[in-house]
Amino acid sequence: MVHLPGSGKPLSVRGIRLGAAAAGIKRQDRDDLLIIEADEGVTVAAVFTQNAFCAAPVLVAREHLGCSPRWLIINSGNANAGTGDRGLLDARTTCRYLADYVGADGCQVLPFSTGVIGEFLPVAKIESALPAALAALDEAGWERAARAIMTTDTRPKMASRTCQLGEATITVTGISKGAGMIHPNMATMLAFLATDARVNQPDLQAVLARATDKTFNCITIDGDTSTNDACVLLASGAAMTSPLDPATADFADFEQAVFGVCEELAEAIVRDGEGATKLMRIQVRQARDVNEARAVAKTIALSPLVKTAFFASDPNWGRILAAVGRAGCEQLDIAGVSIWLGDVQIVNHGGRAQSYTEEAGAAIMARDEILVRVELGRGAAEETVLTCDFSYDYVRINAEYRT
Amino acid sequence: MVHLPGSGKPLSVRGIRLGAAAAGIKRQDRDDLLIIEADEGVTVAAVFTQNAFCAAPVLVAREHLGCSPRWLIINSGNANAGTGDRGLLDARTTCRYLADYVGADGCQVLPFSTGVIGEFLPVAKIESALPAALAALDEAGWERAARAIMTTDTRPKMASRTCQLGEATITVTGISKGAGMIHPNMATMLAFLATDARVNQPDLQAVLARATDKTFNCITIDGDTSTNDACVLLASGAAMTSPLDPATADFADFEQAVFGVCEELAEAIVRDGEGATKLMRIQVRQARDVNEARAVAKTIALSPLVKTAFFASDPNWGRILAAVGRAGCEQLDIAGVSIWLGDVQIVNHGGRAQSYTEEAGAAIMARDEILVRVELGRGAAEETVLTCDFSYDYVRINAEYRT
Repeated sequence: MVHLPGSGKPLSVRGIRLGAAAAGIKRQDRDDLLIIEADEGVTVAAVFTQNAFCAAPVLVAREHLGCSPRWLIINSGNANAGTGDRGLLDARTTCRYLADYVGADGCQVLPFSTGVIGEFLPVAKIESALPAALAALDEAGWERAARAIMTTDTRPKMASRTCQLGEATITVTGISKGAGMIHPNMATMLAFLATDARVNQPDLQAVLARATDKTFNCITIDGDTSTNDACVLLASGAAMTSPLDPATADFADFEQAVFGVCEELAEAIVRDGEGATKLMRIQVRQARDVNEARAVAKTIALSPLVKTAFFASDPNWGRILAAVGRAGCEQLDIAGVSIWLGDVQIVNHGGRAQSYTEEAGAAIMARDEILVRVELGRGAAEETVLTCDFSYDYVRINAEYRT
Repeated sequence: MVHLPGSGKPLSVRGIRLGAAAAGIKRQDRDDLLIIEADEGVTVAAVFTQNAFCAAPVLVAREHLGCSPRWLIINSGNANAGTGDRGLLDARTTCRYLADYVGADGCQVLPFSTGVIGEFLPVAKIESALPAALAALDEAGWERAARAIMTTDTRPKMASRTCQLGEATITVTGISKGAGMIHPNMATMLAFLATDARVNQPDLQAVLARATDKTFNCITIDGDTSTNDACVLLASGAAMTSPLDPATADFADFEQAVFGVCEELAEAIVRDGEGATKLMRIQVRQARDVNEARAVAKTIALSPLVKTAFFASDPNWGRILAAVGRAGCEQLDIAGVSIWLGDVQIVNHGGRAQSYTEEAGAAIMARDEILVRVELGRGAAEETVLTCDFSYDYVRINAEYRT
């Protein structure tokens, strides 16, 4: 049984400590450096962006994964992307600085960065703030950590689950950030999860890959896959003596807990989408396969015309229909297509449903959370993608981002 | 030799007459119905949207193409799309009404519609306005025609070319409309061209297909392929006695004239893009093949982050780089990638160019017409895509469209 804690506050995870500090990377008045430290014996799983221009810290973190890492060093305000060889050197240097403080090898540190692309990382500022971040390390540090990794986010994103596995109660807690450049492909822009369950690394990696594919990879804000996407899951093992066996019901419960945390963090990103006023769940059913369902859902989710219609609370369903029609389904028979807004059917047999009234559509559109359901009538596969609407504020935020 | 007339006014085409009238389809105070009539013996080429939900008039026009059509009936204010069997009946009915007036068969009329999706066509209003439109038929009717087909367009779009073919001087004139839902796939939302050259239908179709592929199919405003896209080329033959031979230099000149008109009309659509303040030419070179070049160019052109940065005149080149990285080039070696804004190199070997300064980038971004050049360093193919920026007004126009 997986439990959702009622408090909304992130639960501590035994064996995992977090410490934040203000390094003054982009602004002076806020935390922008985060260190996560795990007990010896931790297993680490990670997934990264598929963008060909992946950032220097992504390349270095991938390299260091094989080196039994125990520390994560994370900064906001600068992405260290598009920075060439100098960027790689800077990422390695910050790892080594931290390693020197804690008496480890540089390759035991995984680096992560988020912020402006194309500017060099201010390594000296990060070095200066390391002692304060190390001094702050605390198992209760999750909420402050969630704030330290924010960029255009308006609120911290945190989630926890607990489950009873035999005699042990284990916890899974995670934080994420991201509000723009969100179209994750394998993971999303910085999410960090930890558990005190004991899990062998290959099993942990498999759980994380399955969970991110169905959660972070099913959200989109603007179609722009980031250069810095990364999602990491640490398992300290502090709550158990032997590793979970993937063949057991306990393992399934653990996986469900990880899935729940990922799902909640992914949804929190969409709710905090740049300029967003509404959350849309685009559910596509009766597709030939999951890829087709996902392609149709993402085409609808990314259409600027659909997104602006939702911003205006305008049931302009013709735009949804046009998006379905250009989504690339081979030999789509439009007579098989039905579309619902909430529980109001708007399209039947590829045309306006007889029962549909503009008033019924407008009533659904006035909500701040809307289900769009599309049935393609050609198979049994389905997928749901979460997105948000497109408002004046999206333009304002992205026109002003660097100024 | 192909000539570009200096006046900016569209030239008449012998054997082609245009008549507009106000039918009150969406607004009362403007022309919204257009008839185009060609002399007997005209050859007709057409390309249509690839959207699976193509509109009723597209289906009917395709059907009627085999029937030696001589008339086009075009309305703005209503797309007659997503209207099912009733939409097909309505499209056929308007064709038959016009055919009855001119003493022809209904299948000699090609119908076209543009406007709101999902509302039934007001057939009676169109019928009432037919006499006025027929009375207005005139070889000099191009500019009024260009205004009659506008929806969110802010200005009419017209272009002409002439060329001397042996003894004959032939003219190619065209009009187009479109400012949103622009991501043409085989044609764009309503363009009508005519020439007095004499061209056999298969040759005319080939010319139109090649011209649209390199012009209308290389523009995008919002990624939303319309349900009603169509481009038609009429060849009245009035200027010549025998058809052009595709193996001759004259044919090549004719094709160049058609290409020139298509190119000018396509560019006019982007310049009039909803809310647009800037024109961007995205040129991708050194790609493995044209499809790869086009995919990279369209990924950049459609990125909301790139488009809002251009709106803000912010040389935020990291967003261009991130778009290149997610464009799906297999095994892209980022060390081979270079990017220029105008003649200022911003990226070299996949990282910030040593010579680049923010001031130089800002100077280019202040222009209202900007060339973005990307070299992928992996082949010899290239493609250029035109697009516009993304402003507050795009959101306003599309949030208010139906109100």
